[in-house]
Amino acid sequence: MKATTLPAESGADALQASCRALAERARQAARELAWVPSERKNRWLLAVAEALEREQDSLLRANAEDMAAAPQRGLNAAALDRLKLTPARLQAVAQGVRQVALLPDPVGEIRGGERRPNGLEVCKIGVPLGVIFFIYESRPNVTVDAAALCVKSGNAVILRGGSEALQTNLALTQLLRTLLARCGLPEDAIQSVPTSDRAAVGYFLRWPDCIDLVIPRGGKSLIERVVAEARMPVLKHYDGNCHVYVDAAADLDMAERIIVNAKCQRPGVCNAAESLLVHANIADIFLPRIAAALQQHGVELRGCPETCRRLPGITPATEEDYAQEYLDLILSIKVVHSLEEAIEHINTYGSHHTDAIVTRDLQAARLFAQRVDSAAVMINASTRFHDGFEMGLGAEIGISTDRFHARGPCGLRELTTYKYLVTGEGHIRE
Amino acid sequence: MKATTLPAESGADALQASCRALAERARQAARELAWVPSERKNRWLLAVAEALEREQDSLLRANAEDMAAAPQRGLNAAALDRLKLTPARLQAVAQGVRQVALLPDPVGEIRGGERRPNGLEVCKIGVPLGVIFFIYESRPNVTVDAAALCVKSGNAVILRGGSEALQTNLALTQLLRTLLARCGLPEDAIQSVPTSDRAAVGYFLRWPDCIDLVIPRGGKSLIERVVAEARMPVLKHYDGNCHVYVDAAADLDMAERIIVNAKCQRPGVCNAAESLLVHANIADIFLPRIAAALQQHGVELRGCPETCRRLPGITPATEEDYAQEYLDLILSIKVVHSLEEAIEHINTYGSHHTDAIVTRDLQAARLFAQRVDSAAVMINASTRFHDGFEMGLGAEIGISTDRFHARGPCGLRELTTYKYLVTGEGHIRE
Repeated sequence: MKATTLPAESGADALQASCRALAERARQAARELAWVPSERKNRWLLAVAEALEREQDSLLRANAEDMAAAPQRGLNAAALDRLKLTPARLQAVAQGVRQVALLPDPVGEIRGGERRPNGLEVCKIGVPLGVIFFIYESRPNVTVDAAALCVKSGNAVILRGGSEALQTNLALTQLLRTLLARCGLPEDAIQSVPTSDRAAVGYFLRWPDCIDLVIPRGGKSLIERVVAEARMPVLKHYDGNCHVYVDAAADLDMAERIIVNAKCQRPGVCNAAESLLVHANIADIFLPRIAAALQQHGVELRGCPETCRRLPGITPATEEDYAQEYLDLILSIKVVHSLEEAIEHINTYGSHHTDAIVTRDLQAARLFAQRVDSAAVMINASTRFHDGFEMGLGAEIGISTDRFHARGPCGLRELTTYKYLVTGEGHIRE
Repeated sequence: MKATTLPAESGADALQASCRALAERARQAARELAWVPSERKNRWLLAVAEALEREQDSLLRANAEDMAAAPQRGLNAAALDRLKLTPARLQAVAQGVRQVALLPDPVGEIRGGERRPNGLEVCKIGVPLGVIFFIYESRPNVTVDAAALCVKSGNAVILRGGSEALQTNLALTQLLRTLLARCGLPEDAIQSVPTSDRAAVGYFLRWPDCIDLVIPRGGKSLIERVVAEARMPVLKHYDGNCHVYVDAAADLDMAERIIVNAKCQRPGVCNAAESLLVHANIADIFLPRIAAALQQHGVELRGCPETCRRLPGITPATEEDYAQEYLDLILSIKVVHSLEEAIEHINTYGSHHTDAIVTRDLQAARLFAQRVDSAAVMINASTRFHDGFEMGLGAEIGISTDRFHARGPCGLRELTTYKYLVTGEGHIRE
């Protein structure tokens, strides 16, 4: 690794020059990696999985340094848990890398084409995006996951992890790079930003000639900074304000099961439910029942006036409640008087991430599927299934809340673009 | 049309409020249009085609106003020709609209999916992008083409044409909107920016909540302004610095035919050739021959030293020549000593738009196709075939030089995104 850390006396110019050199090496590595056979990339992935298990001790030692420094940085218990590596966690990461090796290579994939009437053959072929700048927070497993997905899809990646995981990430990156070289792949296909200086991020965002895509994974303020500064496309993952709508024609047992799962199975993630809509026709029967089930799981309920009338004692919901992603054991509830009102509410207050209907009525299911403008629409299934692995795309680098390029889970194919290959026999245009 | 022109005394606040109201109407219209059946959109397209022919007189009158005002605006002969409508041109536009009606609807198209091992059904479905802000120059036919493509793909469009075509565009937009209403479609799906004030463009670029995509069609400075200001994705169409490489194993008759076509058939367009690379092994024979053919067509040649040695009297080429899109009867020439050198030159100096190889050697063709990083790679065919219609995508709104979302011709499908529909039977995640 040519530049893992910079001397403390380096000025802003030296930092910028060092970042620029890194970005240019990434561009060059991306060109070399673009058409490497899948076999060689898979050999690297398997070597990484093996090394993560074999070189456990040195990786855990690097992680122990970060863990030791963490209390001074003010990390709380949850953050410490995210940062910590264990033998079991390393093994899980290794398993994930082996699964990426088994996924089909999106590079070189034929995505359509035809023989034109004049005999010209047109073929659309998957190719890598190029260089990806990936900004993420502390969990060190993300370093390996992201590198594995980027390299398998033929892209070079510049990693910018959280400063609290610096030693762990340096050790992991070193391991990944050493194995790239050993497998005959360009080692600069994986590089880390060599400083925690926040200015460095700004430099990279200004170089569309070297970087093709930024993926910021983190809080809203990070994403907004990146969107404002970046001169290249940004793949965004904003809020998941997800709804479950219980239709008049719902199977109420199924509705209860789905709501409890969507809200309680893992309340801190983006595809957990944050809001419940209940059709007025069944509100008298269903609301007391679902309230009891959710309160058993410790969920706080906040309702519209019609909900509060049926569930005396719960907190009234405000406009802000309906627009909010709690990421916690809180659920807003609203009684609606029609399917159309439910759809309108979801399209207005939701975040176009994941929304579910529970119904036996085919026409209601079809209308909901058509009209709800979300990356994933669930019919009689928990919102928690909005996930690359569950939906058959394999491992993912994130879930896009954008409409452009990729929507929903971003797996290997979403990390590529395409080119057209046009073959003739001396064809000219008249 | 609610706001075609603003009173002259309107201040910046009134202008901004009027633009905002227009953008919000577009958002609402896009929601309504998103799931309209194809049949109704096609009925509108056919009605438009008919009206363009039937209401020729009033359209030509509006165009005559623009033509009369054009000399004061300093338009030259070429610009005047682009601006002018004639009965024949209106008929060609109508024909283009009829072809769009015949194209398959990308909305509702099933783009993949599977039944998961747990029985969950996952389906990826084409949906519109939403609201498109389209900025373009004087040719009035573009107004109709863009509106036809946007509406067919379920998108609302905000049109910002050149001020020199204002009356023509207003008349066309009025016709398109009247027919939308008559066909039961939301008329605000097509709106024009009601002022030539350049500030208006800046307002729209700041409203990602109302606008999903900007397509600027025009000079580099326009595109750069839009990229710098836009807070939503931009579909860019930059330079086409296209190459033809004549391999050592080329059929020289074919090479001559392709080069003359690529350079001379329509030199002012983005897929015309700007640079010729010739393998050293055939340079002695081929260069004098192609020079004679091109000079017969009035092409000015600028060569590397090895070219100049073989073609005494031509202008030496500079570094800038190799990076330039002439859009004129000028061609830069370079002798290369290997396929690899040709590929390296193209990836370094080219604009990743369209590049061609002429060869009989399968291995050379394969390597060129893999390694040249361009939206379209041509084998034994003229660069002029990089075009939505020629490549079987139908009419196009532009050719993207971006890597993200869409690369190459942008037809109906490229104006859409997708959603996932996940159907279960009460599935919950364990």
